[in-house]
Amino acid sequence: MNVGGVPLRPLAAAPGRDAVVVIDQRALPHRLQFATLASVQDVFTAIRDMWVRGAPLIGAVAAYGLALQARVDASDAALAAAVAHLQSARPTAVNLAWALQRMQRHLFALPASERGGAAWDEAGAIAEEDVRVNAAIGRHGLPLLQAVAARKRGPVNVLTHCNAGWLATVDWGTATAPVYQAHAAGLPLHVWVDETRPRNQGASLTAWELGQAGVPHTVIADNAGGHLMQRGQVDLVIVGCDRVSARGDVCNKIGTYLKALAARDNGVPFVVAMPTSTLDLALADGVSEIPIEERSAREVTHLAGLDAAGSVVEVQLTPAGSAAANPAFDVTPARLVSGLITEHGVVAAQEDALRQLMEERR
Amino acid sequence: MNVGGVPLRPLAAAPGRDAVVVIDQRALPHRLQFATLASVQDVFTAIRDMWVRGAPLIGAVAAYGLALQARVDASDAALAAAVAHLQSARPTAVNLAWALQRMQRHLFALPASERGGAAWDEAGAIAEEDVRVNAAIGRHGLPLLQAVAARKRGPVNVLTHCNAGWLATVDWGTATAPVYQAHAAGLPLHVWVDETRPRNQGASLTAWELGQAGVPHTVIADNAGGHLMQRGQVDLVIVGCDRVSARGDVCNKIGTYLKALAARDNGVPFVVAMPTSTLDLALADGVSEIPIEERSAREVTHLAGLDAAGSVVEVQLTPAGSAAANPAFDVTPARLVSGLITEHGVVAAQEDALRQLMEERR
Repeated sequence: MNVGGVPLRPLAAAPGRDAVVVIDQRALPHRLQFATLASVQDVFTAIRDMWVRGAPLIGAVAAYGLALQARVDASDAALAAAVAHLQSARPTAVNLAWALQRMQRHLFALPASERGGAAWDEAGAIAEEDVRVNAAIGRHGLPLLQAVAARKRGPVNVLTHCNAGWLATVDWGTATAPVYQAHAAGLPLHVWVDETRPRNQGASLTAWELGQAGVPHTVIADNAGGHLMQRGQVDLVIVGCDRVSARGDVCNKIGTYLKALAARDNGVPFVVAMPTSTLDLALADGVSEIPIEERSAREVTHLAGLDAAGSVVEVQLTPAGSAAANPAFDVTPARLVSGLITEHGVVAAQEDALRQLMEERR
Repeated sequence: MNVGGVPLRPLAAAPGRDAVVVIDQRALPHRLQFATLASVQDVFTAIRDMWVRGAPLIGAVAAYGLALQARVDASDAALAAAVAHLQSARPTAVNLAWALQRMQRHLFALPASERGGAAWDEAGAIAEEDVRVNAAIGRHGLPLLQAVAARKRGPVNVLTHCNAGWLATVDWGTATAPVYQAHAAGLPLHVWVDETRPRNQGASLTAWELGQAGVPHTVIADNAGGHLMQRGQVDLVIVGCDRVSARGDVCNKIGTYLKALAARDNGVPFVVAMPTSTLDLALADGVSEIPIEERSAREVTHLAGLDAAGSVVEVQLTPAGSAAANPAFDVTPARLVSGLITEHGVVAAQEDALRQLMEERR
């Protein structure tokens, strides 16, 4: 997508095949800042410390991390160790494991001498596939927005949580792909952007993205969505996901479940943009089986922002003696999900429908 | 309640009857700072700009505001103008109107010459009544916590939203009164404190109060409560309220409705501490009839905290071009409310039960 009118992606492979350049998302929305990752350890740090985040993007960046490892030592042992290390950076999103396993499968089938070049090509293929997948999610999601526009006056009001935008992917985003396509098609739109505490990916990333694209939007506290739905001010909720179980339970950023409950209570469709790489058919009950990452309490007790002098500073919000807890994801049971927008079309959040979709595509 | 072991209230009448001293709650949890309010305009500003907040407390402070007016000009016209002015400071909480109407009724029945002294006495009576009411709410709520303790090992896990603690009242708090009484009785307790964006009354006020009282607690993002309930980590939700309709719809801080939905979805009791002064029998449908205050977007886009040097600074969270919306309250439909803890006992969130309670007490 464009930034200041210029196309930009959050991930670019260096022409010398010796590094990847990423947007360091910790500095947004106040500064657009890049970081060069030149080793598997750089990639590990960038994923763990969330310089890059978003399930599809961390899969693609991790694939490049393995390619950086393959440049140095492409032995089975070295690659397997790198896979295990990278996979440990974030436990919840399945795309990370999915991309690393795909890379490992591909490379183990080749002699070590060919692995360096092949790894770079395969990481590039994963990244380009992500772009095509998200564009397809946009095409399949667009009719949902058009249908709302056809039955009401004024803009279509979408609510989204966290950032499932192009910054969370290689391009287009997942939840935002239908929004960007609708905006490009001239559909009147307005997006309610959940701030998404504690890391504020909505207020800092989604709002920034939508602003760059000229999409009308309003930032709200995470607390406000239910009230807006009660007042008829939300036509559709679209979110991304980090892992979806075989029966359609959706693991996504903490707080998603609360919005799904409010959507159900008010008859608002709650749809999830899901690349099929995010589907984990090995899991049935998402609520009990998906591991939920517990992140640092400091993300709750402290918050960074721009001070009056234009510097980014971190401030403490809580009393010195108060503990904080920080579960990073929650699981929305399939019964609350109106539909999953995949690259192959919209599918019900039901086990038979999901298994059939994957069978057909095998 | 005690601060540093010393009893303190958020509101104290000056012995000379010429001012009230309040805790300026904007500085908490980082500084304990007081403000002296010596005129009706001081009181108006303190309520509107939330130096003091919490439905019961603003009722009591407003009563003193009218008493300060009565010192200067106790004519019907002057008092009526002051009532209208003070009432306009915050539109949602009914206690403000309740306290001012009670003062006006009382004073209009007296000759102007007696109104100055009588107003001060009546404001004091309102404040002392609030203390008694909240202590009674604590006594009636305590058995709910004891019942949980009797059937489980480990601490009773309470979740609360916003600050319905002693800082929101003259003493004890409403939602916290049962917690403080249970803690004093030696019941093992732990409180999940919703941060409560955008103004963070949970992270800055409730956490501070509980810390001062030695009650174990953990601050969480507002997004986390549903996940904790799914995992069985919440035994009971207790919140305060700003206005309750005749049929039991509960208006409280924005985001309360989302927690009520999650409580219902997970079989967790959702109880509301309600002084009967917060009941508005003139309203039936809380969702459509209670006016919801829309506060400044700046409360969403900016946030104050303690920087590394120990100064309180305000930082901007959102991109420069992004709008924000800030509805301050939402309404939880009565069907989601397990019970209302009043000063007269626990009552169902049902119109017949509420009308009967008020009939009996008339």
